[in-house]
Amino acid sequence: MPAAVDGPIGLFDSGVGGLTVARALADRLPGERLLYFGDTAHLPYGDKSPEAIRGYSLSIAQHLVDLGAKAIVIACNSASSVAYDALVDALSVPVFNVIDPVVAEVARLKVKRVGIWGTKATIKSGVFPAKLAAQAPDAAVRAWATPLLVPVIEENILHGPILDAVIDGYARPTLAEDVTALVLACTHYPIVAAQIGQRMGANVALLSTPQIVAEHVAATLGDRGLLRTAAPKAPHEFMVSDYTPAFESIAQQFFGEAIALREDHLWG
Amino acid sequence: MPAAVDGPIGLFDSGVGGLTVARALADRLPGERLLYFGDTAHLPYGDKSPEAIRGYSLSIAQHLVDLGAKAIVIACNSASSVAYDALVDALSVPVFNVIDPVVAEVARLKVKRVGIWGTKATIKSGVFPAKLAAQAPDAAVRAWATPLLVPVIEENILHGPILDAVIDGYARPTLAEDVTALVLACTHYPIVAAQIGQRMGANVALLSTPQIVAEHVAATLGDRGLLRTAAPKAPHEFMVSDYTPAFESIAQQFFGEAIALREDHLWG
Repeated sequence: MPAAVDGPIGLFDSGVGGLTVARALADRLPGERLLYFGDTAHLPYGDKSPEAIRGYSLSIAQHLVDLGAKAIVIACNSASSVAYDALVDALSVPVFNVIDPVVAEVARLKVKRVGIWGTKATIKSGVFPAKLAAQAPDAAVRAWATPLLVPVIEENILHGPILDAVIDGYARPTLAEDVTALVLACTHYPIVAAQIGQRMGANVALLSTPQIVAEHVAATLGDRGLLRTAAPKAPHEFMVSDYTPAFESIAQQFFGEAIALREDHLWG
Repeated sequence: MPAAVDGPIGLFDSGVGGLTVARALADRLPGERLLYFGDTAHLPYGDKSPEAIRGYSLSIAQHLVDLGAKAIVIACNSASSVAYDALVDALSVPVFNVIDPVVAEVARLKVKRVGIWGTKATIKSGVFPAKLAAQAPDAAVRAWATPLLVPVIEENILHGPILDAVIDGYARPTLAEDVTALVLACTHYPIVAAQIGQRMGANVALLSTPQIVAEHVAATLGDRGLLRTAAPKAPHEFMVSDYTPAFESIAQQFFGEAIALREDHLWG
């Protein structure tokens, strides 16, 4: 594999959501440099056709590879569902999605009754139940679309009565099914994982996509000898396809620190 | 004016929101036929550039006129802000927007302290404070973006703790300003006007866009001799630029009765 070990890990999403995955990767692999692309001109991907999402994903991922990325993380559930195979075929670097590592974790933990929370598009796709049926056949799976969490989080409502009411509305049917683990299958949801966990109680294990994906990426790149060892680390870099000042402020909230846009940050 | 009195009244919006205006018009003018266009391929308009919204609006309005519309109602705050003048210039039929009649009503009622609730795009445009400053200069104006109401309404959450918490979160700062009237400056909000009114209390008059606009359209078309008198009424008709089954079900909720899509309903 020709990828330079010192190249960045490339990630992309339709907007800021994938920054929770970037945060987890930065925490898990502090020696690595990240190159993040938010396809803000086309957000939200959840409303687009599979063909369109596949086209955007291919050109973004190729651009990140052209900029030196040694691996690509599809930090978005919608794009992971429809574009992963095409990217694996098209690219010469390792490609990761945010679904398979979570499915593998449910199988590894031998979860008996697992709940899935996701956007309407993710739940409607049926991708989690289908993959779990194949890889964790003993797990009973129940899935709920929980679409109000995204606008509430994007309004920066991270505690208080509105968030409590929204979480409670989704928690009631979930708890009624006696799930023993809950997959937060949207990259936005980790922002309020603590509040969800508090409402679900100690008997429900929360499976948070960013940490599981970061662990899997770290293990795979380590196995392939693709982790940096010595050279001093440059700052993480961020790019978008449509710039708004709001992106930078909400990106900071999702990434947990101020972000530095590349000089040539506008592309696509 | 060459418009045929028996032609329909044309309305358009980026989606279902304008159907609350269609409902009010159908109630106020039961003898009239409506021809409604939802530009669902381009929704939401709130995120688009003024140039793009103007272009969509011009071609939709022209198409409605070509289909026989005797008047055009821009049933959308975003399009009313940026496309009204262009449509007045381009079309030979009367054109109405959803802003001017509401501003005139605030002036007519001599409201002393008026609050505005709208989407981020509407509030950021500053169109209501600017027009009120010119036409109701004695009214003190305060405006709040209340963006969570749209996703909550579109999730069909029309009562209960989530809606109560969202309304309460916006009502507190509004009540703290001692407003005597509140403009619901988004075509979605009338769906929960009763719940908003209950929280605001009897001392705050709710100014609901659809009823005010319908009254103004009825008076203007009456003055111009453009209201139907005798011929039996054909059913209202509906068109969209991107069809999804969800449109028909949510449209029924907004319009208050089942809608009939035209045979050639897909256009644009």
